[in-house]
Amino acid sequence: MIKIFVLHGPNLNLLGKREVTQYGESNLEELNQNLVHYGEEKGVRISTAQSNLEGELINHLQDAEGKFAGVVFNPGGYTHTSVAIRDAVKAIDIPVIEVHLTNILGREEFRHISVVAPVCTGTIAGFGVTSYLLGIDALLYILEQV
Amino acid sequence: MIKIFVLHGPNLNLLGKREVTQYGESNLEELNQNLVHYGEEKGVRISTAQSNLEGELINHLQDAEGKFAGVVFNPGGYTHTSVAIRDAVKAIDIPVIEVHLTNILGREEFRHISVVAPVCTGTIAGFGVTSYLLGIDALLYILEQV
Amino acid sequence: MIKIFVLHGPNLNLLGKREVTQYGESNLEELNQNLVHYGEEKGVRISTAQSNLEGELINHLQDAEGKFAGVVFNPGGYTHTSVAIRDAVKAIDIPVIEVHLTNILGREEFRHISVVAPVCTGTIAGFGVTSYLLGIDALLYILEQV
Amino acid sequence: MIKIFVLHGPNLNLLGKREVTQYGESNLEELNQNLVHYGEEKGVRISTAQSNLEGELINHLQDAEGKFAGVVFNPGGYTHTSVAIRDAVKAIDIPVIEVHLTNILGREEFRHISVVAPVCTGTIAGFGVTSYLLGIDALLYILEQV
Amino acid sequence: MIKIFVLHGPNLNLLGKREVTQYGESNLEELNQNLVHYGEEKGVRISTAQSNLEGELINHLQDAEGKFAGVVFNPGGYTHTSVAIRDAVKAIDIPVIEVHLTNILGREEFRHISVVAPVCTGTIAGFGVTSYLLGIDALLYILEQV
Amino acid sequence: MIKIFVLHGPNLNLLGKREVTQYGESNLEELNQNLVHYGEEKGVRISTAQSNLEGELINHLQDAEGKFAGVVFNPGGYTHTSVAIRDAVKAIDIPVIEVHLTNILGREEFRHISVVAPVCTGTIAGFGVTSYLLGIDALLYILEQV
Amino acid sequence: MIKIFVLHGPNLNLLGKREVTQYGESNLEELNQNLVHYGEEKGVRISTAQSNLEGELINHLQDAEGKFAGVVFNPGGYTHTSVAIRDAVKAIDIPVIEVHLTNILGREEFRHISVVAPVCTGTIAGFGVTSYLLGIDALLYILEQV
Amino acid sequence: MIKIFVLHGPNLNLLGKREVTQYGESNLEELNQNLVHYGEEKGVRISTAQSNLEGELINHLQDAEGKFAGVVFNPGGYTHTSVAIRDAVKAIDIPVIEVHLTNILGREEFRHISVVAPVCTGTIAGFGVTSYLLGIDALLYILEQV
Amino acid sequence: MIKIFVLHGPNLNLLGKREVTQYGESNLEELNQNLVHYGEEKGVRISTAQSNLEGELINHLQDAEGKFAGVVFNPGGYTHTSVAIRDAVKAIDIPVIEVHLTNILGREEFRHISVVAPVCTGTIAGFGVTSYLLGIDALLYILEQV
Amino acid sequence: MIKIFVLHGPNLNLLGKREVTQYGESNLEELNQNLVHYGEEKGVRISTAQSNLEGELINHLQDAEGKFAGVVFNPGGYTHTSVAIRDAVKAIDIPVIEVHLTNILGREEFRHISVVAPVCTGTIAGFGVTSYLLGIDALLYILEQV
Amino acid sequence: MIKIFVLHGPNLNLLGKREVTQYGESNLEELNQNLVHYGEEKGVRISTAQSNLEGELINHLQDAEGKFAGVVFNPGGYTHTSVAIRDAVKAIDIPVIEVHLTNILGREEFRHISVVAPVCTGTIAGFGVTSYLLGIDALLYILEQV
Amino acid sequence: MIKIFVLHGPNLNLLGKREVTQYGESNLEELNQNLVHYGEEKGVRISTAQSNLEGELINHLQDAEGKFAGVVFNPGGYTHTSVAIRDAVKAIDIPVIEVHLTNILGREEFRHISVVAPVCTGTIAGFGVTSYLLGIDALLYILEQV
Repeated sequence: MIKIFVLHGPNLNLLGKREVTQYGESNLEELNQNLVHYGEEKGVRISTAQSNLEGELINHLQDAEGKFAGVVFNPGGYTHTSVAIRDAVKAIDIPVIEVHLTNILGREEFRHISVVAPVCTGTIAGFGVTSYLLGIDALLYILEQV
Repeated sequence: MIKIFVLHGPNLNLLGKREVTQYGESNLEELNQNLVHYGEEKGVRISTAQSNLEGELINHLQDAEGKFAGVVFNPGGYTHTSVAIRDAVKAIDIPVIEVHLTNILGREEFRHISVVAPVCTGTIAGFGVTSYLLGIDALLYILEQV
Repeated sequence: MIKIFVLHGPNLNLLGKREVTQYGESNLEELNQNLVHYGEEKGVRISTAQSNLEGELINHLQDAEGKFAGVVFNPGGYTHTSVAIRDAVKAIDIPVIEVHLTNILGREEFRHISVVAPVCTGTIAGFGVTSYLLGIDALLYILEQV
Repeated sequence: MIKIFVLHGPNLNLLGKREVTQYGESNLEELNQNLVHYGEEKGVRISTAQSNLEGELINHLQDAEGKFAGVVFNPGGYTHTSVAIRDAVKAIDIPVIEVHLTNILGREEFRHISVVAPVCTGTIAGFGVTSYLLGIDALLYILEQV
Repeated sequence: MIKIFVLHGPNLNLLGKREVTQYGESNLEELNQNLVHYGEEKGVRISTAQSNLEGELINHLQDAEGKFAGVVFNPGGYTHTSVAIRDAVKAIDIPVIEVHLTNILGREEFRHISVVAPVCTGTIAGFGVTSYLLGIDALLYILEQV
Repeated sequence: MIKIFVLHGPNLNLLGKREVTQYGESNLEELNQNLVHYGEEKGVRISTAQSNLEGELINHLQDAEGKFAGVVFNPGGYTHTSVAIRDAVKAIDIPVIEVHLTNILGREEFRHISVVAPVCTGTIAGFGVTSYLLGIDALLYILEQV
Repeated sequence: MIKIFVLHGPNLNLLGKREVTQYGESNLEELNQNLVHYGEEKGVRISTAQSNLEGELINHLQDAEGKFAGVVFNPGGYTHTSVAIRDAVKAIDIPVIEVHLTNILGREEFRHISVVAPVCTGTIAGFGVTSYLLGIDALLYILEQV
Repeated sequence: MIKIFVLHGPNLNLLGKREVTQYGESNLEELNQNLVHYGEEKGVRISTAQSNLEGELINHLQDAEGKFAGVVFNPGGYTHTSVAIRDAVKAIDIPVIEVHLTNILGREEFRHISVVAPVCTGTIAGFGVTSYLLGIDALLYILEQV
Repeated sequence: MIKIFVLHGPNLNLLGKREVTQYGESNLEELNQNLVHYGEEKGVRISTAQSNLEGELINHLQDAEGKFAGVVFNPGGYTHTSVAIRDAVKAIDIPVIEVHLTNILGREEFRHISVVAPVCTGTIAGFGVTSYLLGIDALLYILEQV
Repeated sequence: MIKIFVLHGPNLNLLGKREVTQYGESNLEELNQNLVHYGEEKGVRISTAQSNLEGELINHLQDAEGKFAGVVFNPGGYTHTSVAIRDAVKAIDIPVIEVHLTNILGREEFRHISVVAPVCTGTIAGFGVTSYLLGIDALLYILEQV
Repeated sequence: MIKIFVLHGPNLNLLGKREVTQYGESNLEELNQNLVHYGEEKGVRISTAQSNLEGELINHLQDAEGKFAGVVFNPGGYTHTSVAIRDAVKAIDIPVIEVHLTNILGREEFRHISVVAPVCTGTIAGFGVTSYLLGIDALLYILEQV
Repeated sequence: MIKIFVLHGPNLNLLGKREVTQYGESNLEELNQNLVHYGEEKGVRISTAQSNLEGELINHLQDAEGKFAGVVFNPGGYTHTSVAIRDAVKAIDIPVIEVHLTNILGREEFRHISVVAPVCTGTIAGFGVTSYLLGIDALLYILEQV
């Protein structure tokens, strides 16, 4: 069975608790359950993790390579600054899909630059938690050539 | 039955005929057929159009409002320069999803700026023709709250 | 009798139908009738045209030269990008007044640059549809030295 | 009777005395008389003032609020640098119309930026002393909804 | 008894009269009385002045040197452009504390640059009229080493 | 017999009618006749077209591929902004030579950037209508290795 | 009793041990004791923490919300780069005061930009360890309306 | 007898009183006496003035035209920002020589831009009070063709 | 015996496992053994560490001061963004040599800026793992004045 | 007989010896012989020179004026930086044609700026050694009006 | 007797032969004779040199140190680009005065930047050949304290 | 025996004579002797050259190819501006190591850009004359794979 890793970056542990009008009402636990159920429907196994630390996200990405077929990754605020995360994404051989809850191009100026995007397979942004589901679909299209 | 409009921008009529390593082998007719079939599976009706003219794309967007529930739009080379298309997207009340075959953030510098993205609901880029399928899925999530 | 040409750029056919708080409630037909009536009061004949296509606007500008004493021109979204329209304005010998419904300097950054303004006789921005009336007045001052 | 304040910024006391090809031959006194006559025709009372001092212009703007229905303001060289004048315009509740004798977008690079324009109701530039007349007309449209 | 000079820049004479939601309801006279009372509690004598003229502010700063132990200075709109005020602050030997009612880094782009700050002892911004009280406290810490 | 396509961009239909000191006195018909005669001397067949519309130029470029051995192209004002035309030039397999009547590097700042040039075979600028003749010569050198 | 959290960012554990001329002689333990004593005088309880890890600072900020009435935060070197910390400050509902030992606007160019400041309540910079005391005072003004 | 006007900008009244290592020890009165004596040796009459107010400097420049053969002008901190002073220099018909005590290109970045210099006859910077003497010499060369 | 600390930044634990053409075939363990052997030949003791976490690298740098004579440091992706690491390097009194496997100036634009380099003793880049050996040599030259 | 001077800039003495895929296989001697033969066919005399020294190229340009009817000039790497060569080209009265082997707009960013081009008659780039032949043709068109 | 070296940069050997309206009618030989005569009047010995080569100018500057009391230097087109000349000026211990015939701040944008000025004693620009005389005067003021 | 060429750029002939605190006390002759001795210890033959002329450095680089196994090159002030030297380094097939006495990233802004570095094998900066020794070592590692 295909295994997919969903990795949440900084502050996503606050999902559903703060700024609900911006990010939606479901919290991270509910989101992760939804992702697991969605995976079961699609016949894939979803594992999830979250960290607020830049280096821990790098560790997660490096560890994912042997264990998962691909990564759905929301790098949060590190999207715009972290060359180190970029290097980690580039160093591993499995596809990484960048996802965002909001349309980052429609927000503040400094959110228009993604240091990470150029080394990802693709980007999905602006659909709330649905961005994650589309990210899983995208991975499956790539992996299964459906 | 929900009706969705897929709008292709400049040079996409050359799809599958040129730069195959970059854009894939299926041509525009085949892509459009795939989109229609994909719509039938999902229970929605897909209509398609293509134009190389900036103003015709604006006309298509304006006309779409009364007839379709949403638009999946690949603005091609106009993505980076057309304030007029941006104004048209903003002026209509149905959701518009921006899609790109390639990951535009991984290419030339001048392709990193999207004038159109900030007024779209969301962006999907980098999955070849699958970007369109994900765009249809995204629209359905938004419209049906599936 | 003096003849004046009023040329509307892209998306102005949507006037009064969309974004009413931003652009006002009268639609393009009503605006054009107002302009014609206003012209009759002033003793000038007003002709109008609108197009979403950059090249058609260029054709209109080129055609205006022999037929009209001057042009009141709202270039819409092309204001900020079109070197080709700029060249057309510069190539014809009749005065062209640039008008805008909104105060473009008070909106998004990319609307602060006008490629077209430097070759126009003058600019009037920020007075809603009244900008057109002031544009006609400005042309008459120039033409008649009133 | 409606009262309108016309405020001239730095160096406009030299009008008609220097650089006649650029700014025209009528001097400031003649211009002010024309403005008063023009106001009488329109049934409004025009008061005028001029200062070369940034702070005096701010004082004039602040004083205008209780006494006048609106201001026609040529900020001259302060247009491009004075945040303090901008703050004064923003702080008062009556409409302020920015006018310029010349088309500032057609001159030196540093004249393309207007710090003041974003907080004005609108801008009129490029019509010589007629810019002032159009500014009065614009104010009347706004105030009387003619 | 220690004497401290509080200097208000342009438009601060409008305090409490305009834009109350942004700047609070107390006017400049009340603020100055509060500052004097606050000084009495702390055992220092507070003198205040306000001017809209850049050059008068420079005169005030130059005059302050022999008479006061330090200055609490809100340069208002001159903060971002006045090299001359900067030179005046640098030329005098008493400490100058820059204060702002609002958090200037959270407002328009052009307010993020302070020409004056680099030559001040320190900066306090974002606490409404309390910024002045904190400015007095800061001066006292510096002067008395409390 | 080798067939070459000469494509004129926006406003070139005004050639010889306007701004004669800048662009020379021969009009577009005379230029096209000269090009045809020049081709006959060289033993090649020249076809010409002109359009003010960005999208029509894209259509012309796409159509040229099967019919002509190469293109001599003056993109006019679109030179500096059109990513869509750039994409069209890149998508076709025949050589495209960019030509300009004037030395664009010697004119206004915004004319120094060519979006189209990087995907053309070469650039010839500054020789008036002779630029076209040199463009044809350049194509022949490339095609025939003379 | 009101509880306030003082959070020190990277390298502040070296306080008083290095670069004494720049940062002063008291070390972090002494500073923290001073802050606690200062709090006792003011009738508030001060808790402190320090970390060199970006993600741990985010964790501290997230944890502070339920436990403290506000935060006095010196983000150190992360001030200028960390979008993730900015997002954390914005996500929590208690006031955060940014403090700096030195006047960051008077040092190297890259220290002039604060990514964090726009989402803080206010900023205090340039008073050495006194900046922290002023930060506590500022919080008390905000919380108690003294 | 030729009459020359020497105009000192903001903060130059502090000359010799502050920052002596930077600007030298002679104060403004002594400098003015030296200039008058120097003028007597050269057979010209020197008048001097100083102001901290931008607008007063403009008034001085405007008044100088009928009375003096030329101006030696140190615009101080206004050098880098004042478009209004620039306009005044440009508006008068007598030569204006810009002088600076220090080599402005060797100091802070924001002192490298001179808004005023392009409309002056020439610039002399970096020679302390001798810059004024050289400025008088330069004027005499221009006026007398010595 | 002199002790030298070699500190590897993020993703260097993947050395020799990924992107072998770019970074070489030896993995981090082998590299560390080589460095230790190289140290033995030179008569110095080499200790090594690696971390993907920005704050841990800061901790390592702070800890190194009392224990080692100098540091050979490859900051990896943090080179270009981390002001906090820069502050740590600056705060410690032992020499730090920045090394890179690749010539960072020959790669992507954002790798041309080193925030860390200005506070290091020197930089060595572009020699693969040999950069480390040269870094040790450089430290020895500095420490022993050989 | 018309005499034309062909001047080769720095590193062109390596032509045909290095980077053959980029610059072609013929060396400088062969190229010069071709140019001479080509001239003989056209009835003009071609002289050639090459130098790696900026000042020698300036000397060559200055010397060419009395002796030649025009110059075909490949400034090589000096194209992008040399104001001194620009001044030399501008100072002489004979036409100078700038030629390049490669399409400089299609290469690295810093090669997009030509300091020299604005003062040349025209530019030809991208045709390998044929650029020189076209440069001679261009000169002949200009000189003989063929 | 004091000895002063006057050094002319690239293209100044063309003085009086080209662009006479811009640079005046006297040629370099006449200018040099004037400078020598002017020196005799002042009681100093003037030596002159000119070169078009950047490196020769560096050699001249290095050689000047033991032989002359100071240098009057017109770096011509190298003013704006040569870091190497800057380093040479900085390396020698005698004063160097930068002079220019024209007011470089009033010409093209790229002439506004002087790489050389920050290390010169002062700058004199805009007075034609008189700039040199003023440069000699300036040197004498510095050397003799006259 | 391996032969290595050490090439010194502009102003390095002043080494040890000027700015000793910045560059050290040994002069160029002593440095060259040290390099030769160092080479003898390592079993390689070192040749050296110095020039202040950009073009002579290009000649040296071109000549080095057949005669030496590699170059240790300090381009001095040309590092930041010379595209022509860059082209020369790229054109030759032997490795070139860029060395600098000082850490150029820790000095003025304009020294942070190296035009030459991207085409060198690697860069060593900041170790005084030891940079050269490390440069020789680096070459030997590359050549001998020691």
